[in-house]
Amino acid sequence: MTYCVGLSVNEGIVMLSDTRTNAGLDNISTFSKMFAVEQPGERALLLTTAGNLAITQAVWNHLQAGVWHNGLLQKLTDVPDMVVAAQLVGAAVRLVAQQDGPALAAQGLAFDCSLLLGGQIAGGPPRLFLIYSAGNFIEATDDTPFLQIGEHKYGKPILDRVLTPRTSLIEGVALTLISMDSTLRSNLSVGMPLDLGVIRTNELATCTRRRITDEDPYYRTIRDGWSQALRDAYLALPRPDFVL
Amino acid sequence: MTYCVGLSVNEGIVMLSDTRTNAGLDNISTFSKMFAVEQPGERALLLTTAGNLAITQAVWNHLQAGVWHNGLLQKLTDVPDMVVAAQLVGAAVRLVAQQDGPALAAQGLAFDCSLLLGGQIAGGPPRLFLIYSAGNFIEATDDTPFLQIGEHKYGKPILDRVLTPRTSLIEGVALTLISMDSTLRSNLSVGMPLDLGVIRTNELATCTRRRITDEDPYYRTIRDGWSQALRDAYLALPRPDFVL
Repeated sequence: MTYCVGLSVNEGIVMLSDTRTNAGLDNISTFSKMFAVEQPGERALLLTTAGNLAITQAVWNHLQAGVWHNGLLQKLTDVPDMVVAAQLVGAAVRLVAQQDGPALAAQGLAFDCSLLLGGQIAGGPPRLFLIYSAGNFIEATDDTPFLQIGEHKYGKPILDRVLTPRTSLIEGVALTLISMDSTLRSNLSVGMPLDLGVIRTNELATCTRRRITDEDPYYRTIRDGWSQALRDAYLALPRPDFVL
Repeated sequence: MTYCVGLSVNEGIVMLSDTRTNAGLDNISTFSKMFAVEQPGERALLLTTAGNLAITQAVWNHLQAGVWHNGLLQKLTDVPDMVVAAQLVGAAVRLVAQQDGPALAAQGLAFDCSLLLGGQIAGGPPRLFLIYSAGNFIEATDDTPFLQIGEHKYGKPILDRVLTPRTSLIEGVALTLISMDSTLRSNLSVGMPLDLGVIRTNELATCTRRRITDEDPYYRTIRDGWSQALRDAYLALPRPDFVL
């Protein structure tokens, strides 16, 4: 499994991904699931991946080599805007589906992948997309300014309750770490270390790329602090007034 | 979907279930998923169900009519202890699987049901079981004093962090309501009203059966209070010290 979350707030884009991959519970590895495309002053994109690692790595390989789209061999370094960037990722997914789908199906395996693409290209605003295994995609909006892939349920309640487009980038980083911590606590197949990427609106560069390990002092603060905060919040709530 | 949670703490058993059933998103109904078997002073059992409603109602019908188990036609009113009670529920599940499984499979439908059985029978301690669609079961222990069926993920983090066997019954009621609230907030197919059942250790009776509606003042306190408490807990955590 995997957990990746992306936020699209007024100040920019926050992306956080775990690094655990597994082929069965007895075969666990660490792979980064975050990829960056950057041309400072011109574009900054972050891609995170969930699903079958062979599929998502093939998608990334195609994107680096270039993918035929609208009659042109295009890369994320030369697409004109974020929508075309999302279309290009979708085209790469469809290419892999075409190449590997039948062989996977013959083994009884689903064509399983999903990706988050966040970033900004000069001339347009920052945007955040979720690309499905069918190659189509949805976009985060002001109503729902976050998108998740992989094991999304444990980390969703705090995002549902707190995140708005006015949330600052630094608050967003804290939120994604809390959301990840809830997931790590409840699903063994999501694991440390984490990859964090932040793109500030109109900077057209990734202002932060950070590998967060178990020893990261801030992450430890979140991990210990959030568990304690949940316990405290629970203790502070009134108890039922009806007699048992 | 459904969410049912059961706690087994030193003071007794707490069971909470939602009441929403759906056949597709456009066909939603309200059905109680909690059933009680009580012989005051002798036994008190609560059963909650998740999965295909036709299956779980058939299981309950079989249990009321009596199920052949170990060469005897037995009911939950006359099994000698909680383990045999769980075996009897499992036997009823297998009976329905035998009767309806092939016709369901012919329609491409899975044989989907799971049940929580909690309670106490004179001569033994209170026990809590989760019975699978295969008719086998697991039991809650001191290490993991809760069991869930249905949409379990959203409501698990708070239980993971707070519940111990020393948690009191009244705290347990508050916890199950918080756990349910997180689930209701994030999954539309889990819905109000709720059914609450509490069995106090050695009382051999259900000390509380309560239908909790949207208007229930305590539930409203939990619903509003928990969202606010989560937001406050998040606000109280430190922000990252690294510069973005």
